[in-house]
Amino acid sequence: MAGKLTAPILLVGTPIHQADLAYATRFSAPDPVVFFRKGRHAFLVVNRMEIARARKTVDQITVFSPEDLHLKPEERHRYAGWAMGLLRKLRIRKVRVASDFPLGVAHYLETNGCRVVLDESPLFPERSVKSVREIRSITFAQQAAVAGLAAAEKAIRTARADRRGILILDRKPLTSERVRKLIHTALLDFDCVGTETIVAGGRSSADPHQVGHGPLHTGEPIVIDIFPRHIPSGYWGDITRTMWHGTPSPTLIRMYDAVRAAQLTVLHQVRPGVRTRTLHQEAVRVLAEHGFVTRTVNGRAEGFIHGTGHGVGLEIHEAPALGGGSDRLKTGQVITVEPGLYYPNIGGVRIEDTVQVTRKGCKILAEYPYFRATSSRK
Amino acid sequence: MAGKLTAPILLVGTPIHQADLAYATRFSAPDPVVFFRKGRHAFLVVNRMEIARARKTVDQITVFSPEDLHLKPEERHRYAGWAMGLLRKLRIRKVRVASDFPLGVAHYLETNGCRVVLDESPLFPERSVKSVREIRSITFAQQAAVAGLAAAEKAIRTARADRRGILILDRKPLTSERVRKLIHTALLDFDCVGTETIVAGGRSSADPHQVGHGPLHTGEPIVIDIFPRHIPSGYWGDITRTMWHGTPSPTLIRMYDAVRAAQLTVLHQVRPGVRTRTLHQEAVRVLAEHGFVTRTVNGRAEGFIHGTGHGVGLEIHEAPALGGGSDRLKTGQVITVEPGLYYPNIGGVRIEDTVQVTRKGCKILAEYPYFRATSSRK
Repeated sequence: MAGKLTAPILLVGTPIHQADLAYATRFSAPDPVVFFRKGRHAFLVVNRMEIARARKTVDQITVFSPEDLHLKPEERHRYAGWAMGLLRKLRIRKVRVASDFPLGVAHYLETNGCRVVLDESPLFPERSVKSVREIRSITFAQQAAVAGLAAAEKAIRTARADRRGILILDRKPLTSERVRKLIHTALLDFDCVGTETIVAGGRSSADPHQVGHGPLHTGEPIVIDIFPRHIPSGYWGDITRTMWHGTPSPTLIRMYDAVRAAQLTVLHQVRPGVRTRTLHQEAVRVLAEHGFVTRTVNGRAEGFIHGTGHGVGLEIHEAPALGGGSDRLKTGQVITVEPGLYYPNIGGVRIEDTVQVTRKGCKILAEYPYFRATSSRK
Repeated sequence: MAGKLTAPILLVGTPIHQADLAYATRFSAPDPVVFFRKGRHAFLVVNRMEIARARKTVDQITVFSPEDLHLKPEERHRYAGWAMGLLRKLRIRKVRVASDFPLGVAHYLETNGCRVVLDESPLFPERSVKSVREIRSITFAQQAAVAGLAAAEKAIRTARADRRGILILDRKPLTSERVRKLIHTALLDFDCVGTETIVAGGRSSADPHQVGHGPLHTGEPIVIDIFPRHIPSGYWGDITRTMWHGTPSPTLIRMYDAVRAAQLTVLHQVRPGVRTRTLHQEAVRVLAEHGFVTRTVNGRAEGFIHGTGHGVGLEIHEAPALGGGSDRLKTGQVITVEPGLYYPNIGGVRIEDTVQVTRKGCKILAEYPYFRATSSRK
């Protein structure tokens, strides 16, 4: 195992989609690159067009183009060929790769005499603990998300309901699409971009990843989940509030209070050393105490049907997962705390904040009021 | 080879990042899924939370959650385990996977008695030929991009230059960042999102993937490359114009005319059956005839330093590539035609349109004027 874990690292992929590559290089590119690190020596292969930009961006990494690697003709237009050329140049005969390493590249390297050792554990476990610079980027994305929530809430508050209960703003129905656009416009002020932003009203909110379509109605839950990416840095933020216009049903209020109680309980228990599983079990316990059970009805799960949270960084979902695992939280990790309840005949409630694990507990990266707290909002 | 090519297909990945998965399922999700197809029978494994949404979205695909697969405990939280469970349930002992298939999953399957056959060719070669529905989505993204260009051009035209040549609009310097924000706002009206949109002025435009920062100047080239993604469908558009404020240098005008001539020449030759290599060679030839050579100076490439175009679809860069390859174009493919010239001491010029290959030639999916054409714009 020792030999395995010390073998030099090889990564092949597209930095904007491959967080390990973005983490290792801080170079953002829409096309595949090859990265190799042995001890303190790191190398990056990018296409000729990207050479100048890559050299300007990276720090302590030697940048090559395929033309520098004396490639065989069949290697020139294949990333597997770039990787093989680099390893040949550096006289490397064994590399360590992650579980998501492309099989085709591994096969090409093995065929050409380089041993490829699969490492099932994360290549950069340190990625879950964020630096000051990383926390600044995530906080920035989170502030954008808060501005998005404010834009959404303002529209929902300002709207009136017509006779059928449909929300009307500026004489037109207030739809999920319109609210989403208000949110996305707000994000642009922060150099952030939202894509699958969720504005799900009524029963559609019972599906946690349903983005939401059509007119919003008074009295129904409106789940707003905003996860912007800060484009210059590549880091994400993540926040959810459940809002409503007018008077919600007593059941919805009970669901809301249960979810908020579960969130508060977990937030109070976040600290270094606590097991992720313990936090999830606490959320489940509080929801059950409030009378909300998780079960499968007619093949469809209802209740608290997802984990309590996840790490946030260069990926929107990254380690640590707050589910069934036995990992312990560490100072400097950034996680969401987001219990929720989903019943197909009622709708959903989710409340989510992104927090930094501190030495004594946690810090919410960007605050936004909890909708139910103020009675005037009912 | 015949046996190899008929083995059933297995895909494991995240649909929003893995175009083959999005193509095969039309299901968009931010978390990994497993897809398997044998003949006309297709299967999708998604986490329990996504079941209802997946069943609503997919057509003629049987959807399972991991709970349906009688997984071993160690398989429940690993996508490799989901894949193995599905194959066991279906009594499949051999699967065909693409070059980008994750090595860790392949290893797990092999260890558990399933043969994994690597297929280096695309699993869905038909992806490059677009259906009417797909062309509609790409056209929509392209119309968004055109609206973005119009917003950018309006700002640049309206600006005045101060004594140092810096563009001023509404009493503030007109920066790459401000123009980018105008573009991104325009895209939102089309349900499209732009991320690394390029607004690169002056010498920074000599780097084709430099997004651009800071104040824009009169007389300098401003390369604007907009590639929005239409969020509901996942399809991309791609367009580039090179603009300027005031009077450009004679060299810049010569570069512009050469690039536009190269683009026109290629556009006139696009038709089914023509080799991609031929189109690229034509662009190189026309640029050379205008006196512009491609070479490496002090380790940095200059001139026409990228291919003439690429396919556009569920990926921004997909097959066919218009570079050195010998593929022949097919009716229904959607490609960019985008020659460019880049000289570090001058800057860059690129002109790009996205076109559909038709039976007799090609059709530009969304038209936008060419900046140099109108003398009043000089």
